[in-house]
Amino acid sequence: MTAFQDEYPEKFSHCFGCGKSHPSGLRLKSHWDMEGNPIDTIVSVTPPEIYSGGVPGHVYGGMIAALFDCHGTASAAAFACRAEGRKIGDWNLPDSDLPPVRYVTASLTVDFLRPTPQNVELKIRARLLMIEGRKIELEMTLMADDLLCAKARMLAVRFQEKGA
Amino acid sequence: MTAFQDEYPEKFSHCFGCGKSHPSGLRLKSHWDMEGNPIDTIVSVTPPEIYSGGVPGHVYGGMIAALFDCHGTASAAAFACRAEGRKIGDWNLPDSDLPPVRYVTASLTVDFLRPTPQNVELKIRARLLMIEGRKIELEMTLMADDLLCAKARMLAVRFQEKGA
Repeated sequence: MTAFQDEYPEKFSHCFGCGKSHPSGLRLKSHWDMEGNPIDTIVSVTPPEIYSGGVPGHVYGGMIAALFDCHGTASAAAFACRAEGRKIGDWNLPDSDLPPVRYVTASLTVDFLRPTPQNVELKIRARLLMIEGRKIELEMTLMADDLLCAKARMLAVRFQEKGA
Repeated sequence: MTAFQDEYPEKFSHCFGCGKSHPSGLRLKSHWDMEGNPIDTIVSVTPPEIYSGGVPGHVYGGMIAALFDCHGTASAAAFACRAEGRKIGDWNLPDSDLPPVRYVTASLTVDFLRPTPQNVELKIRARLLMIEGRKIELEMTLMADDLLCAKARMLAVRFQEKGA
């Protein structure tokens, strides 16, 4: 299945967390949550062991925030495309003159509810809360197996080329 | 100058962002801001180039959140020690039976104000807002040269050994 990030234009594809063109990043792959609630989005990832928290065996807080950040902006683009009746990546179709849809984070709040274990596949889900002009608000959860370890809320803003 | 993180007990020293015992982490070193406002804390860091944002030349959002997270919890411990008239690391003195002072993040909000450039030394400062029981609230800024690129607010909670 093509992930949202697979459709990012090349110039936006160098993020350590989710860029397909980053030589050694995490390359997160976000999708619609077809096995759960398909109005939501999901990404699954087992962060490399190097990203330990202070006490070994736990994922460090910065990595958790990073996962929310990358999945959140990918999801914002997907939610915007859905709301506009567009297909994600339609800007890559031959002869398309549609502008790419990309969002950047304006504000991210992460609530750390319990330590997040290492060496477990984490599932991060996003749900759309609000679209208003260039702004999108969404909420996210991070689960390790059946444990809710962290949640987040993001305000993302549509990227606009200067002069556009 | 001894950094706050140099005084962490060994069991808390394995964080990718700030642990002195992490084999390849960032090893952030937070201090009182003696060249600025000494009631605040500061850490200086030039994040490795691998942590690129989507568009090359910018630090990725997750790394920015990580810097705030590590500097914030270190600063919370320093603010608590100061408020209690304790010296940071007094638990490491010979014959000390004082418990170590460590904080964990309950909630972190990051406002991304503008892209943060790579290959520039970043300065992250923290200021105490409130101490109430086990809770500390603080606010932070991230500067790249004279540019304010991001700010944050953290609620940190004092770590308590189970059964203590």
